[in-house]
Amino acid sequence: MKIIRQLPEMQAYAEQQRALGKTLGFVPTMGALHEGHLSLIHRAKKENHQVIVSIFVNPTQFGVNEDFDQYPRNLEADSALAKEAGADVIFSPIASDMYPAHFSTRITMGTIAEGLCGKYRSGHFDGVAIVVNKLFHLVNPHRAYFGQKDAQQVQVIRQMVADLNMRVEIIACPIIREADGLAMSSRNAYLSEKERVSARLLNQALLKGCQYIKEGHENPQELHQMMKEFLESDPQIQIQYIEILHPTTLEPVSTLKTPLMIALAVFIGNTRLIDNTIID
Amino acid sequence: MKIIRQLPEMQAYAEQQRALGKTLGFVPTMGALHEGHLSLIHRAKKENHQVIVSIFVNPTQFGVNEDFDQYPRNLEADSALAKEAGADVIFSPIASDMYPAHFSTRITMGTIAEGLCGKYRSGHFDGVAIVVNKLFHLVNPHRAYFGQKDAQQVQVIRQMVADLNMRVEIIACPIIREADGLAMSSRNAYLSEKERVSARLLNQALLKGCQYIKEGHENPQELHQMMKEFLESDPQIQIQYIEILHPTTLEPVSTLKTPLMIALAVFIGNTRLIDNTIID
Repeated sequence: MKIIRQLPEMQAYAEQQRALGKTLGFVPTMGALHEGHLSLIHRAKKENHQVIVSIFVNPTQFGVNEDFDQYPRNLEADSALAKEAGADVIFSPIASDMYPAHFSTRITMGTIAEGLCGKYRSGHFDGVAIVVNKLFHLVNPHRAYFGQKDAQQVQVIRQMVADLNMRVEIIACPIIREADGLAMSSRNAYLSEKERVSARLLNQALLKGCQYIKEGHENPQELHQMMKEFLESDPQIQIQYIEILHPTTLEPVSTLKTPLMIALAVFIGNTRLIDNTIID
Repeated sequence: MKIIRQLPEMQAYAEQQRALGKTLGFVPTMGALHEGHLSLIHRAKKENHQVIVSIFVNPTQFGVNEDFDQYPRNLEADSALAKEAGADVIFSPIASDMYPAHFSTRITMGTIAEGLCGKYRSGHFDGVAIVVNKLFHLVNPHRAYFGQKDAQQVQVIRQMVADLNMRVEIIACPIIREADGLAMSSRNAYLSEKERVSARLLNQALLKGCQYIKEGHENPQELHQMMKEFLESDPQIQIQYIEILHPTTLEPVSTLKTPLMIALAVFIGNTRLIDNTIID
């Protein structure tokens, strides 16, 4: 497996592989790899000749009071995991190469980035858009793989790719969960033992929501209230949002008619966790 | 010569040519082709296997009170001129394909887009950035050719390409002038016979400015004043700006040390004209 740190080397490698007729699968990550990331690498490996995994803790997608400094970084361990999962290249650029002194371009995404996490993480999706835009130009992949756990991120990227006519197929992959249902996340590592127990309630709340919809209820406010009460039964959980939406437009629905997405964000202690589920 | 109107057809054509090892030169235009455009096509033809000329009057780069409706459109005449100059493909997309109903991505460029024309044409360079970004993804050229007459546009595009790591070489080509020195522009067609006579003063003012610098003067304010008085000697001319700048950063200079750019914008009647010159 190759490790590339320089931007021009990454572009040259991609160009060379394309000239050889190879298809390129791309898994952009911020490192701290878990089974969720590895599932993306496995899928990319099945569908492409070469798999490139980027590891870059992108400063522009963190807010001023967020966990940029604290975010776990371990290039060596991540590289070993990625290699074992099938990565052919680790691309790990340096922040000052990605954002040099005179960097000034901004990408803003409109309504798709305004609800859900966008409402609470000002500038987050602008940061996601710019880094993914740059990475797509650097890696030049045929297909790029994202986890459905970051459901709004997937839609933001789909919107950008469509609007800018970028030639890359966006593939969203299912959420991977721990045995007790907690969605895999690099931020789970922040949880204390006690908080980790509380974190199980996120998936339980979503399952209760699905059940409620399948029973034929029609009122999103009642569903919201039911899930709110369930989560608030644990005093460690602070709800940021529970939203019932259309799964691609991310617009709130007025009646519980499928397809639907239930998405939620909570704080447990200082750790912010998100989760979601789609009901087809 | 091929005429392409559909976006997927353009992308497929570019991909196919690249697979055959052909280099692609791209000349983006809004039509109303003149000798300036044709010089770009000639240059692109010399340096690439295939030349693609886009003709698209881009709505997002016109302000509400500007000349979008009035802008000259004649695809047939333009196609004939482009073909004669060496174009292999005319790409003339439809506005509703470029900007469908749910289009929402915006690109903003920072300080490079704020001075000069950017100060007077709110949103203009955002519109330029978005359309050029899209066209680069649609045409996927090795090299793209722009006229130095739109000096700020060239720098805005260079900045976007660098910031977003887009893989296209930007080539700025010299201003082409009429026999009496007026810079070629599609908007010259708006001038009455009398206004056309006044328009000669733009280039004359720039020549006087160059002369002034070559004489060893050091004070930009005095140069500005001299050019202002010269242009105002014609009551038909309304100055919008005269700026003395560094030619790549476009930052105003405090002393007349080369390299320098003098850039100006004026109204003659209802017609806005720009011109510039670089002193190395």
